[in-house]
Amino acid sequence: MGYIASGISMSLDGFVTGPGPTRDRPLGERGEVLHRWLDEPMAPSDRVHLAGMRGRTGAVVMGRNGYAPYEGTAAGPLGTTPCVVLTHSPPKPDEVGAPELFTFVTGGIAEALERAGELAGGKDVVLHGASPVQQALRAGLVDELYVSLTPVILGSGTRLFDNLEGVHVQLERLQVVMSPGVTHLRFQVRR
Amino acid sequence: MGYIASGISMSLDGFVTGPGPTRDRPLGERGEVLHRWLDEPMAPSDRVHLAGMRGRTGAVVMGRNGYAPYEGTAAGPLGTTPCVVLTHSPPKPDEVGAPELFTFVTGGIAEALERAGELAGGKDVVLHGASPVQQALRAGLVDELYVSLTPVILGSGTRLFDNLEGVHVQLERLQVVMSPGVTHLRFQVRR
Repeated sequence: MGYIASGISMSLDGFVTGPGPTRDRPLGERGEVLHRWLDEPMAPSDRVHLAGMRGRTGAVVMGRNGYAPYEGTAAGPLGTTPCVVLTHSPPKPDEVGAPELFTFVTGGIAEALERAGELAGGKDVVLHGASPVQQALRAGLVDELYVSLTPVILGSGTRLFDNLEGVHVQLERLQVVMSPGVTHLRFQVRR
Repeated sequence: MGYIASGISMSLDGFVTGPGPTRDRPLGERGEVLHRWLDEPMAPSDRVHLAGMRGRTGAVVMGRNGYAPYEGTAAGPLGTTPCVVLTHSPPKPDEVGAPELFTFVTGGIAEALERAGELAGGKDVVLHGASPVQQALRAGLVDELYVSLTPVILGSGTRLFDNLEGVHVQLERLQVVMSPGVTHLRFQVRR
């Protein structure tokens, strides 16, 4: 079991959304290009990469923004995989479409990861979204990072690696997958 | 002949120096890790990569900060390869150690690149430093980018891709070199 910052499509200039992300357009202006490698038909190498990541995932930790698209739905981002949502104001139980899937935690990233670890059944806990990844990096609680580097410069948007002043992490490159439209990079945090 | 943003060692979080770069410590706090792959003995794949880049380089465009270490010296960053320095205040001729190597240009990035192109003898013009690369990206004057991605998170410092709001560049990945301590990525700008 590890804490994995995963499923992150990042532009070469470090953005995980384009400018002006909204609830209706969560990837912001021109940000859809970051997820183009997920379009069907997916390249075989992307399919294998994605299946590998999903197979390892036992629970997901996300922020309130990451949860927003699933507020009323019966499934989470990975079907029935349990999700822990970091929030200051949990929704009322009857506002949650799939209460058996979503756990709301107000105590911060360490509590969210611990709770997710209990739900993960021995598999990995995946951090979903820039803010949870940043919080976990600041707390020294990331074991691996998967970044899908997209060949584009977006100029502005949401940076994956932001608000990390004073953080210093040595990494080891574990794997590079050169898919046609994206480069999947996997790093391990060196302790 | 092309305009190449090259020789750039960047951390996974996008920094080309650590925090607080100074003239005496141009890579800032902990930033030396970015250039560790250049230490001897260099890995064979790094040696080949570096020799290839240098062989293609006919002239270098740099900013005033990039020029600072060579103010009084008899050689530039690539020996006798001509350099064009972007500056608002050119030094007096007798303050320049190698006046035959250094040309000072006050008219901006387009003029600097044009002047360097004349000096490059048909080879590529290489952009050296974050600020010249940003200026050239804003002007739409970059043909290729070489980024040596270093497996470290520095948290703060000088970002390579900054001040690029409104810039949007589609890239094509040309090459990935997986050296032991660094991943060299080469991209072409799509027109």
